Amino acid sequence: MSTLIVINPNSSQTVTDGIDKALNPLRSFGIPIRCLTLAEGPPGIENQRQADLNIAPMLALAAAQEDAAGYVIACFGDPGLHALRDQTALPVVGIQEAAVMTALTLGQRFGVIAILPASIPRHLRAFGAMGVLNRLAGDRALGLGVADLADEGKSLAAMIATGKRLRYEDGANVLIMGCAGMARYREPLQEATGLPVVEPTQAAVSMALGQIRLSLSHKSTGPEHAG
Amino acid sequence: MSTLIVINPNSSQTVTDGIDKALNPLRSFGIPIRCLTLAEGPPGIENQRQADLNIAPMLALAAAQEDAAGYVIACFGDPGLHALRDQTALPVVGIQEAAVMTALTLGQRFGVIAILPASIPRHLRAFGAMGVLNRLAGDRALGLGVADLADEGKSLAAMIATGKRLRYEDGANVLIMGCAGMARYREPLQEATGLPVVEPTQAAVSMALGQIRLSLSHKSTGPEHAG
Amino acid sequence: MSTLIVINPNSSQTVTDGIDKALNPLRSFGIPIRCLTLAEGPPGIENQRQADLNIAPMLALAAAQEDAAGYVIACFGDPGLHALRDQTALPVVGIQEAAVMTALTLGQRFGVIAILPASIPRHLRAFGAMGVLNRLAGDRALGLGVADLADEGKSLAAMIATGKRLRYEDGANVLIMGCAGMARYREPLQEATGLPVVEPTQAAVSMALGQIRLSLSHKSTGPEHAG
Amino acid sequence: MSTLIVINPNSSQTVTDGIDKALNPLRSFGIPIRCLTLAEGPPGIENQRQADLNIAPMLALAAAQEDAAGYVIACFGDPGLHALRDQTALPVVGIQEAAVMTALTLGQRFGVIAILPASIPRHLRAFGAMGVLNRLAGDRALGLGVADLADEGKSLAAMIATGKRLRYEDGANVLIMGCAGMARYREPLQEATGLPVVEPTQAAVSMALGQIRLSLSHKSTGPEHAG
Amino acid sequence: MSTLIVINPNSSQTVTDGIDKALNPLRSFGIPIRCLTLAEGPPGIENQRQADLNIAPMLALAAAQEDAAGYVIACFGDPGLHALRDQTALPVVGIQEAAVMTALTLGQRFGVIAILPASIPRHLRAFGAMGVLNRLAGDRALGLGVADLADEGKSLAAMIATGKRLRYEDGANVLIMGCAGMARYREPLQEATGLPVVEPTQAAVSMALGQIRLSLSHKSTGPEHAG
Amino acid sequence: MSTLIVINPNSSQTVTDGIDKALNPLRSFGIPIRCLTLAEGPPGIENQRQADLNIAPMLALAAAQEDAAGYVIACFGDPGLHALRDQTALPVVGIQEAAVMTALTLGQRFGVIAILPASIPRHLRAFGAMGVLNRLAGDRALGLGVADLADEGKSLAAMIATGKRLRYEDGANVLIMGCAGMARYREPLQEATGLPVVEPTQAAVSMALGQIRLSLSHKSTGPEHAG
Repeated sequence: MSTLIVINPNSSQTVTDGIDKALNPLRSFGIPIRCLTLAEGPPGIENQRQADLNIAPMLALAAAQEDAAGYVIACFGDPGLHALRDQTALPVVGIQEAAVMTALTLGQRFGVIAILPASIPRHLRAFGAMGVLNRLAGDRALGLGVADLADEGKSLAAMIATGKRLRYEDGANVLIMGCAGMARYREPLQEATGLPVVEPTQAAVSMALGQIRLSLSHKSTGPEHAG
Repeated sequence: MSTLIVINPNSSQTVTDGIDKALNPLRSFGIPIRCLTLAEGPPGIENQRQADLNIAPMLALAAAQEDAAGYVIACFGDPGLHALRDQTALPVVGIQEAAVMTALTLGQRFGVIAILPASIPRHLRAFGAMGVLNRLAGDRALGLGVADLADEGKSLAAMIATGKRLRYEDGANVLIMGCAGMARYREPLQEATGLPVVEPTQAAVSMALGQIRLSLSHKSTGPEHAG
Repeated sequence: MSTLIVINPNSSQTVTDGIDKALNPLRSFGIPIRCLTLAEGPPGIENQRQADLNIAPMLALAAAQEDAAGYVIACFGDPGLHALRDQTALPVVGIQEAAVMTALTLGQRFGVIAILPASIPRHLRAFGAMGVLNRLAGDRALGLGVADLADEGKSLAAMIATGKRLRYEDGANVLIMGCAGMARYREPLQEATGLPVVEPTQAAVSMALGQIRLSLSHKSTGPEHAG
Repeated sequence: MSTLIVINPNSSQTVTDGIDKALNPLRSFGIPIRCLTLAEGPPGIENQRQADLNIAPMLALAAAQEDAAGYVIACFGDPGLHALRDQTALPVVGIQEAAVMTALTLGQRFGVIAILPASIPRHLRAFGAMGVLNRLAGDRALGLGVADLADEGKSLAAMIATGKRLRYEDGANVLIMGCAGMARYREPLQEATGLPVVEPTQAAVSMALGQIRLSLSHKSTGPEHAG
Repeated sequence: MSTLIVINPNSSQTVTDGIDKALNPLRSFGIPIRCLTLAEGPPGIENQRQADLNIAPMLALAAAQEDAAGYVIACFGDPGLHALRDQTALPVVGIQEAAVMTALTLGQRFGVIAILPASIPRHLRAFGAMGVLNRLAGDRALGLGVADLADEGKSLAAMIATGKRLRYEDGANVLIMGCAGMARYREPLQEATGLPVVEPTQAAVSMALGQIRLSLSHKSTGPEHAG
Repeated sequence: MSTLIVINPNSSQTVTDGIDKALNPLRSFGIPIRCLTLAEGPPGIENQRQADLNIAPMLALAAAQEDAAGYVIACFGDPGLHALRDQTALPVVGIQEAAVMTALTLGQRFGVIAILPASIPRHLRAFGAMGVLNRLAGDRALGLGVADLADEGKSLAAMIATGKRLRYEDGANVLIMGCAGMARYREPLQEATGLPVVEPTQAAVSMALGQIRLSLSHKSTGPEHAG
């Protein structure tokens, strides 16, 4: 039976396990979901260079999944999203794009919790390409060092503080977690900030399952013009 | 078991039946879906006045569904969307909003097939409120009279002609059907235009099912400010 | 002699009286102005649901004014604006829309003083539909409870504090009062903040009188397409 | 009694006379209106250079009107609008700005009839500065030579043809005449195109009279910052 | 003496030679310019997948140039632009970005001549990320097959026809050639269309030389937040 | 040999000398550069009125330079930019426009350091006309009085403080100095803020030299339409 393939393009099995667990509620939809770790990836993707260098092995891993019914690229930043759409006619959903589209139905202005400051310009380029900057309340980094990110308590506290700033200083009424593999923080973050929180892999898998069931997919040809 | 309620806010049972049938692929997701016709509605909603006058009975009908797990308002234009969100904490999805958010993941510029010219300014106001006008390729009316709309052959031909203009003249690479109850045309339209076609009730129900399963919902409180 | 009808869609006669008094300077323009209270309305409109539920009685009240030369809907949020335009060929002006269009001629970035936080997403949807978000400096709520709003001194102090934040923190150079019936605060607010302040019913009535005199009115038909 | 000063910044008395006549309906508002011709101006303003060179004598003419209650600059393009606002604390309205703000209350997308193609980039810069490009349907030149512009029949025919293209090809639902002094064409243009037509000097004078009566005016100080 | 490195990320030496020749006028600025062909690249980059797969070897080639004073990535689409900025602190200019920034100083609305229709959505994403869509008049493909592209006469004729459509149908007042290596068509295209034409490698090298001389360069750290 | 003419449209020779010195690195490009002071100008341009009144003498000064190969207008605000483009077919670059276009290649969001608060609305109108507001992080005034501006230490300290606020509060990742003649502060500002800093006369001269060498120039005719 064909399967939704979720690719974590970093090499951290812990992250993949976190994603896998976050998707449990969606398994009742009846379409198998398989989460893969990209062995060739870095432990975490921290800049555009790392993101871009991962595309080649990610495309190869995707191509090797013979039972694929569709794909989710599980890295906020959606590296290789359009490349994979050029490679396959199956549905391909990026977690950043899906998180934004989901958030836009849950509040007028969305706030993004970025793990690292260096991600923010990358996010802004993506939101500009999506054409949704008028809906952005703010994008704020956690302000944690790498060591602190491994500490669940510190991470959650920083997420809550960041989420509150996005709400009270920037005017967000929905939050997006700007990272895969952190779904375990979603509920406490929601409670502490009083805002709906979109976990991007959940949002993306939910959209992908619908597209698979409805036989909806991009076409990789362009229009004759635009203006 | 709690159920997704889909409300067709016009009084046409034929339209409701069309919607109901279009949702069959999504019934395998395991959440019951019930489609309701708004008896108080007009046979079809043709302008903002009719849309607004329908909100009160629609809200009452929604409130009466005790097993509701969430709602879809199945009228392109999303009348009463935010009013219903004020009334309930359950997920509420509008078909226009969901169709746009889905289309944005399937092509860079979306084209809309409007049934009547008078709907177009209403659509533009909505797309402006959504902040997605940079992604709009065009919004074109079928150019059919009411009598012709009852004729399936003429309707499909007009949809295909309109879809082709949206592709070749306006540069659309994904199409949205600007009306509920016409899912039977989706596949032939897709084939004839070579573009993915989003049927809005399918898009909305797919999003609503995901939000129900993931316990995602708007909050009806505002932020302290925005800027 | 035909008359400009100003409808306060809430049931507070005090608010209507405040509006009526605010319009005195414009009575010298020679067109009669009649201010009506919507008996069926709530004491105040606090969310989109209340706003939408008011449209039906507001439309009926409007239709019953046989000497109407035009209409102003005197609720920030412009509930039923386009519905009333569908109902009549006479000029119809909403106070939110008119306040924004007036403010755009008085300063490069406008700030909005919202009564309640929950109004802000509604405002943002409206400003997005108007296409003027690039001109918005900020939209801030007074931060008062309902009891405090009845206290003139507290209300004015909160307006001034909010207006100053809009000027000094958000960069506004013109302010809009996001509510009808508060014209008595306009002058002290202007003096305290050093910015021009637009009172929305004055702005709307001024525009409506000009449109009546110039025989300018919307048409309720749509274009054939847009893109 | 203080007077609204309308300055035609070109040297054509015929244009000034046309403006003066167009304002007759607004004289019943009770505020005197005086239309002036700028003797130093060229017969018509055809590019940005001519527009800019006119600012100095226009400012001098404005300063010399001792009974001024406010000003309207009656050249589409609004040359010297902000300079005059720097010079005086009285209300100053430009006809381009006022025409756009008025049109935005009459239809979702506005079309502009430009006299000369070279004006269009100037218009687009102004609409960009106003932040209203999302509401622009199109801006089209008449396609007439200078000789033909003197021929009323040819001018009207070209305006109607241009207005129809703006409606049917570009999707406009309100039209703006991109020139002062042509109010006599407004009614036939309205009838022939089926769209409301905004004559910019009427729109500006109407706004200016309201601002005078309401003591509304810009402030020429800037904000501390913007972002 | 340190050198500006221009990398053609496809494997066609003919294209590189065309680029090299186009840069001759800029050699008088006194900074050496070296044009490299990416041996690992495809003969031409036709979609996002090919663009992305080229980034890894392009980064390696860039890193190997020990005398580099700065880089230009000579593929319209700017593949790897931000990745290379992550890799080096030297100035890095993409030809698409530079062509757009240059065109914005030469005309109010720019038109793009795309080689293939499939490139247009990629361009639109980039223009959205750049935030310049309000300045785009249109983006049109040549409509030639690969065989015809090798025919200089047919290519030039198609460019001129496309350029004229961008001018007369879409309202462009400056044109961008959406491809590297075609500078030889710039002058005839300029003459035939009556519009300034930006050749993107010339625009990029010109900007890069200025940035090198002025010691201007990006920083690869992000801000703490954005909103 | 033909020469790039840089016009400082205020009468301060000190400012002109500062500009002249700032351009030294670009003299190696081999095109002579001549910096002129506008004797008729005020000591500094502080508002739109002063800017506009300067256009006539600036155009005359420009016209008198017989060996001109192109022009740079060296006042942030670009007064007379389009007027001079109407007057000559040679390249004309404004320092504001060039600074923005350069900054857009160096960081995702730019911050502007304004000398006076009153300049900010003028900047915003210009950025709106350029269509780049989505890339603006913030625009902040120094907060110095005229006397303090003459004090180099105080000026630099205020610039650094303002630059840091633009970075840390507004999220800028590139800075623009909103004034000519202050190039001496560029390097310390860059070091203290950790961001690239664009000095606008350098940016403009760099672009102008490229346009001269590449025979690139605007055309002063308009398009037939826009939409």
